[in-house]
Amino acid sequence: MKNVPFKGIIAYPITPFDANEKVDIPLFKKLVERLVISGNHGIAPLGSTGVLPYLSDEEKEAITEATIQQVKGRIPTLVGVSNLTTEKTVYHAQFAEKSGADAVMIIPMTYWKLTDDEIVTHYDTVARKISIPIMAYNNPATGGVDMSPALLKRLLEIPNVTMIKESTGDIQRMHYLRKELGEDVAFYNGSNPLALAAFAAGARGWCTAAPNLIPELNIGLYQAIENNQLREAQDIFYQQVELLKFIVAKGLPRAVKAGLNILGEEGGNLRSPLKPLQEKEIEELKIIIKNLKK
Amino acid sequence: MKNVPFKGIIAYPITPFDANEKVDIPLFKKLVERLVISGNHGIAPLGSTGVLPYLSDEEKEAITEATIQQVKGRIPTLVGVSNLTTEKTVYHAQFAEKSGADAVMIIPMTYWKLTDDEIVTHYDTVARKISIPIMAYNNPATGGVDMSPALLKRLLEIPNVTMIKESTGDIQRMHYLRKELGEDVAFYNGSNPLALAAFAAGARGWCTAAPNLIPELNIGLYQAIENNQLREAQDIFYQQVELLKFIVAKGLPRAVKAGLNILGEEGGNLRSPLKPLQEKEIEELKIIIKNLKK
Amino acid sequence: MKNVPFKGIIAYPITPFDANEKVDIPLFKKLVERLVISGNHGIAPLGSTGVLPYLSDEEKEAITEATIQQVKGRIPTLVGVSNLTTEKTVYHAQFAEKSGADAVMIIPMTYWKLTDDEIVTHYDTVARKISIPIMAYNNPATGGVDMSPALLKRLLEIPNVTMIKESTGDIQRMHYLRKELGEDVAFYNGSNPLALAAFAAGARGWCTAAPNLIPELNIGLYQAIENNQLREAQDIFYQQVELLKFIVAKGLPRAVKAGLNILGEEGGNLRSPLKPLQEKEIEELKIIIKNLKK
Amino acid sequence: MKNVPFKGIIAYPITPFDANEKVDIPLFKKLVERLVISGNHGIAPLGSTGVLPYLSDEEKEAITEATIQQVKGRIPTLVGVSNLTTEKTVYHAQFAEKSGADAVMIIPMTYWKLTDDEIVTHYDTVARKISIPIMAYNNPATGGVDMSPALLKRLLEIPNVTMIKESTGDIQRMHYLRKELGEDVAFYNGSNPLALAAFAAGARGWCTAAPNLIPELNIGLYQAIENNQLREAQDIFYQQVELLKFIVAKGLPRAVKAGLNILGEEGGNLRSPLKPLQEKEIEELKIIIKNLKK
Repeated sequence: MKNVPFKGIIAYPITPFDANEKVDIPLFKKLVERLVISGNHGIAPLGSTGVLPYLSDEEKEAITEATIQQVKGRIPTLVGVSNLTTEKTVYHAQFAEKSGADAVMIIPMTYWKLTDDEIVTHYDTVARKISIPIMAYNNPATGGVDMSPALLKRLLEIPNVTMIKESTGDIQRMHYLRKELGEDVAFYNGSNPLALAAFAAGARGWCTAAPNLIPELNIGLYQAIENNQLREAQDIFYQQVELLKFIVAKGLPRAVKAGLNILGEEGGNLRSPLKPLQEKEIEELKIIIKNLKK
Repeated sequence: MKNVPFKGIIAYPITPFDANEKVDIPLFKKLVERLVISGNHGIAPLGSTGVLPYLSDEEKEAITEATIQQVKGRIPTLVGVSNLTTEKTVYHAQFAEKSGADAVMIIPMTYWKLTDDEIVTHYDTVARKISIPIMAYNNPATGGVDMSPALLKRLLEIPNVTMIKESTGDIQRMHYLRKELGEDVAFYNGSNPLALAAFAAGARGWCTAAPNLIPELNIGLYQAIENNQLREAQDIFYQQVELLKFIVAKGLPRAVKAGLNILGEEGGNLRSPLKPLQEKEIEELKIIIKNLKK
Repeated sequence: MKNVPFKGIIAYPITPFDANEKVDIPLFKKLVERLVISGNHGIAPLGSTGVLPYLSDEEKEAITEATIQQVKGRIPTLVGVSNLTTEKTVYHAQFAEKSGADAVMIIPMTYWKLTDDEIVTHYDTVARKISIPIMAYNNPATGGVDMSPALLKRLLEIPNVTMIKESTGDIQRMHYLRKELGEDVAFYNGSNPLALAAFAAGARGWCTAAPNLIPELNIGLYQAIENNQLREAQDIFYQQVELLKFIVAKGLPRAVKAGLNILGEEGGNLRSPLKPLQEKEIEELKIIIKNLKK
Repeated sequence: MKNVPFKGIIAYPITPFDANEKVDIPLFKKLVERLVISGNHGIAPLGSTGVLPYLSDEEKEAITEATIQQVKGRIPTLVGVSNLTTEKTVYHAQFAEKSGADAVMIIPMTYWKLTDDEIVTHYDTVARKISIPIMAYNNPATGGVDMSPALLKRLLEIPNVTMIKESTGDIQRMHYLRKELGEDVAFYNGSNPLALAAFAAGARGWCTAAPNLIPELNIGLYQAIENNQLREAQDIFYQQVELLKFIVAKGLPRAVKAGLNILGEEGGNLRSPLKPLQEKEIEELKIIIKNLKK
């Protein structure tokens, strides 16, 4: 598949902060290294998990460069460059390309709802300014706009928009993409609890923060699917579904950091207004993680 | 599995009417016979597809008896007995049992929203008056109430409520049922476009009107799943997904009757206020059916 | 205004049941009499409050006749005749006309979602068979379909569809009706907590079960509006808004019966599956009613 | 009322851009002057209308200073300082205070949904760092979080959170605020089509971009309410409701700029990805504005 560098499990690192709520680059690199060596098939800094919109331009650039340096080409890198304005999106996309990213991910962030034409122009303007491929990302819960399958189809007509990430949680969107765009469309699942259903529907990959905590289970699910073993996939999915639901329900940055601590790993701090999980929630997560190990 | 007579494809016949909008029993029997001989694993008269709520008590009884007589025990029969009042639900459930039904299906029909306790009491009252098993049916789009997974779990504690039919279109409901209730819970999918995802999630059966039109594809999907062949299941699902979406979007009674006519079968009339599909919609369905045959 | 017999407060009686859940006609007549003598401007049996869909044909007829007999023309009567099938709607509308009703109210009850054309045909068919005016009623929460303002406009083109009752709770629907249809359109508010906003928007009347409990406050609001006294209307509205919200939140039949008991009046029983309010809820209602009296 | 500097019509200027999409401060000042001299009771730069989230820190500061300089204390100024992070919100709030703003407006912008506790801490942290009052703003459509009335009540316990702006479009929120918080709570309406209903419900003011186009009608509505003239208020509201609905439906920055041009005023450009209204939409607005003048 042309210009489609991702397949399998694409892992999303968190962005850790120090005690003064400044980005902690050394810890970030350590977290990136964990994701690479645990066998994930791609890495995606500056996603929702990486609290992209809460970072300054300089912080985004530091995270981008730290990722490329740490990964050293062992797996492909997908850098989030979404921004409310087109000008800033272009700026960050060009920075990512120059830094060595394999692709950029763009969600149309909205304060004022955008028309379909405005969204197409936004992607097209960015696409003309870079030569690496773009993953268009649909997530109304965080981005504030729900791109219809018909609009996603229009975006795919832009030459270097080659991938779609769907996070609506509606499996029928994937059916539509596959039916409308043929077996070769590269669509990715971004809704964790939908992982099994999305792979069953033909998703090429799973964009997920879960490998920060349970990489073997995430990769195992993908392998069972690749082996055409539905029952094994079902088993391995049901082993992890409670954790997937928990991290989504509590917010990925909060939940991943809590989970890292439970696993004995450093996860850093959050940036306000985001606050850590409450004690009761941490206890709940401990039980979920403990049950995984059985 | 105790008291769980259904597995696989459970087919829903329509209720055909004559030119005066009276129920046409001879044609109904013919349609039932088609569903039996095409290999379906169960049959469910008086569902939404069978326009249960638009029928008089006498008509419901005639349909029940006609089904039992025609099926002659070749496959198990699931009779819809839902009613706004508890008294009438008991009445029809007892009639179904006396007539020889293997199980009854009950959706809590609501005009005034029911509390969870009212719903539990409703099912419990009916369950005490019959000895055949009950399938509890959740479909907020037609029934007007959305039973939470926690409420469904409560219903399953009633001895002869042994099966759940989920039609919300949210695959995560099935994950919850399976996680909460163990591998042996008998849950069925009632959302046609979710057929593949539901089987992947472990659904025991698929309650569907589609076998009126494409029984081989419906049964084929089930068999691929039984054979643990995900890719084959995916292929056969994508062959039928457009038809599944169409019949849901247009309303099952309207769409099935139109489809039967396209296939050269008699489908009878609808009862007002329901009207046939418009010419343009029929043309759309013709193309979908034609593409299936390729 | 031609063929528009209602203005002001249109009171909705409940349908009381005896210990065996049979309709209690003598008690019903007593409740109707209370509504007439407390000064309401119209009366509407067999509405949602009167649990229309839970009654048999014979019960509906008995309620219709009991109302006409008891009211004796002192105020106009609006009889609910909604039914899932067109045939039955015609039947009950004709019965109401023959019995002496001043108008009938029709909500398009839906199990299968109706198209706009099906809804228009439904109303048109009924309208041709009676000569009294029809109030078209929009309430997606109970009827299952949300009629757009554009559809309501189409319905008003049917000669004896002369009134609209809007219960979506969206005040902008009323703005649209007034702007589109001119100052003379007769639209009525059916959403209790919207009473002040709806009168401010120009509603001709308020269809409400509240006069079973607080007729003076309901009528007082209407009179303040008629007197162009916004501040007085605001005051009297805020005196009753908690009770209005409570009875809607708990379901009108349950809440009105509980309220009647608190006021020392007989309210009869409910028909299963509907159950009385719980003790805690009754205590809450007692406090709300007590605070009214201050 | 202590620490509540606003009552009546609070006008929202747009932020105009030049041909290179840079903020055009001279034109902004001209637009501010129009709003002051047309008789509005307050002015609110850097709101949604002023495309706050699309501006850099420097641009926000320039807009703040330009407003204070131009208004020269003739009417009170309410500066928008919302930001995803608490640190930046504090920064801009302090800048606004130092520049001479009378109050700041804060919506809890969310990418990751915030818990109630996180929101309270966010406001509390900002409130402790400034001494001017804060208007808490609820608008799930743009901010991404819907603050419940109970949460708004908690926010009002923070000493200098003294005002609430409600833009959900649900009039019942205002009923709740008034009932729960007493007659003296200062709540403001931010939903244009709800202007009449909100004033009827007791709103102290109306936060609106409409005075850029129709200040006399906006101020006239407020005066009719102040004069306790409901019918006059209703008349003047229905004169403007179509324009109010149009500007909301099309997005305030786009629609206000188009309207200014129609009125023969300069409105500047938009910043990408926001694009001007299409020709057909401009024609529609022309007709609406023409009908106003009758």
